[in-house]
Amino acid sequence: MKGFFITLEGGEGAGKSTLARHLHSVLTGRGHQVLLTREPGGTPTAERIRDILVQRSEENLSAQTETLLLYAARDVHVRNVIKPALAAGFVVICDRFADSTLCYQGYAQGLDLNWIQNLHTQILGDFSPDLTFLLDLPVNEGLARSLKQKQNTNDAREGKEDRFESKDISFHEKLRQGFLTLAQQNQHRFVILNAQDKSEDVAHKALAELKARGIFNAV
Amino acid sequence: MKGFFITLEGGEGAGKSTLARHLHSVLTGRGHQVLLTREPGGTPTAERIRDILVQRSEENLSAQTETLLLYAARDVHVRNVIKPALAAGFVVICDRFADSTLCYQGYAQGLDLNWIQNLHTQILGDFSPDLTFLLDLPVNEGLARSLKQKQNTNDAREGKEDRFESKDISFHEKLRQGFLTLAQQNQHRFVILNAQDKSEDVAHKALAELKARGIFNAV
Repeated sequence: MKGFFITLEGGEGAGKSTLARHLHSVLTGRGHQVLLTREPGGTPTAERIRDILVQRSEENLSAQTETLLLYAARDVHVRNVIKPALAAGFVVICDRFADSTLCYQGYAQGLDLNWIQNLHTQILGDFSPDLTFLLDLPVNEGLARSLKQKQNTNDAREGKEDRFESKDISFHEKLRQGFLTLAQQNQHRFVILNAQDKSEDVAHKALAELKARGIFNAV
Repeated sequence: MKGFFITLEGGEGAGKSTLARHLHSVLTGRGHQVLLTREPGGTPTAERIRDILVQRSEENLSAQTETLLLYAARDVHVRNVIKPALAAGFVVICDRFADSTLCYQGYAQGLDLNWIQNLHTQILGDFSPDLTFLLDLPVNEGLARSLKQKQNTNDAREGKEDRFESKDISFHEKLRQGFLTLAQQNQHRFVILNAQDKSEDVAHKALAELKARGIFNAV
């Protein structure tokens, strides 16, 4: 693969989308070919699967069924979008990826972590991000930000995509600890960013990290 | 489980739906609680997944992605519909189940059979039908029947659900041989019915088989 695969992870309200847009803007401005995408989603089929997952259904879905839907969406996203873009030399920036499944369905909802890892290996082998930025934020602040965003905007988050935001505090604490545990276990690819910093500072640190790793010497 | 789980398998035009309705009618008439369902589908979420699978998408889906979608649908169908019905003592009659995935995505499209079996075990353990009726038909006759049905009806099969019917003859030959191989390997639960017989005769043989197995002594 000639390209470079960056994922952004973290809980609600941590600023992933803002960082994604900032990185996209800066890297594109410096001549890189950049693909900004998200999960679940990123292809026509995967976006239809996202709709099933995020819209409150009349039907209860287990964490296992959610994980199967997430991996169906991930499989088509990796095959049809991410791998072709990497092969063409793009920097791919993805808002959430497999770590979110381990944290939301595993750490936070109790689905067996080895079960999820086995599924990942069966479907994607050892395919993994080159670099993962974890936007870490105390739970109360993240939820307060999400609420504020909802009050201030009429975007798609409002109403139909708040499935996890309404969970209780212990859910979000498990989520945060899950992400921090994954970062500890995968230090070669994880970089923890303090999402309490100003968004400009977060983006500056992320870009500095890319440079320090020798990835964007031309930047 | 107090109930009894029957699946109907076979290629296009073999008469599965006709047999399903016939068994439902006879068994209900004799006082059994019978649930007639189908795959992919059978729950609100699984029917939405079916739509993704059967409607020709703008996007190419690999046999692996199809299998993940099929198992997401199967997982929610088994958890939310089939197992609760069996626990309540119902006879569940399902038009297609896991054998169809092994045949359509495995034998006919070349996806590794062990990969599919591993996925099945990971998701459903050893959950399996109690009895499977395979409606076997020479390929040319099955395709001719499908074509005739389409010319004579305006039902949902027309146009949007003919994804596999348009495949070439060798695809359907592999499919048929796949089903026959599975029947050979799982003789304890498979019963092969000659779908060239009249539909009344096929149904009569199916009911006789249920009686011979001591399942419906009251019938």
